[in-house]
Amino acid sequence: MRFGEVQGVLLVRYRGTVVVTLKETIFDPQGEAVKNSLVAMGFSSVTKVRMGKHIIVYLEALNEEEAREKLADMARRLLANPVTETYEISLVEVPD
Amino acid sequence: MRFGEVQGVLLVRYRGTVVVTLKETIFDPQGEAVKNSLVAMGFSSVTKVRMGKHIIVYLEALNEEEAREKLADMARRLLANPVTETYEISLVEVPD
Repeated sequence: MRFGEVQGVLLVRYRGTVVVTLKETIFDPQGEAVKNSLVAMGFSSVTKVRMGKHIIVYLEALNEEEAREKLADMARRLLANPVTETYEISLVEVPD
Repeated sequence: MRFGEVQGVLLVRYRGTVVVTLKETIFDPQGEAVKNSLVAMGFSSVTKVRMGKHIIVYLEALNEEEAREKLADMARRLLANPVTETYEISLVEVPD
């Protein structure tokens, strides 16, 4: 555990992960293209591929709750499209 | 648990996840752009962002070991660039 400090307040460093995936009902042409490539390469047992984003965000926050709230806010406002995508957040404290 | 069948052999259905991330030493301009956007939006505590791919592959295999080998083969041959990227595989059996 290591701390940053802003105006006398101790901040903890976190590595957050935001996984953004298309909603099941949304067509995924990139996933379809990857599936077709895999089948053409001989992986005939592949039935479906869905492409998503794996976004790692390093941030500082007072505690895990605040870090999680910030990440959810980032996901809603920038990282995910709420009409077509869903997101999942995970979080670990990092020593550096 | 549900089974597909090919020439009398029972196959199990799996949902594999291949997470592809850039190696730490590789510059990530997309992650840098997202970081700058987040800071400009007021998330000043963000220090770094790294963008990766979250690829979900539905496939059939004899067992978990074979499914994992197939996914690793797909990652090496198509999904990841071995020079600039690393990958991690996870796997769950699916009922459908």
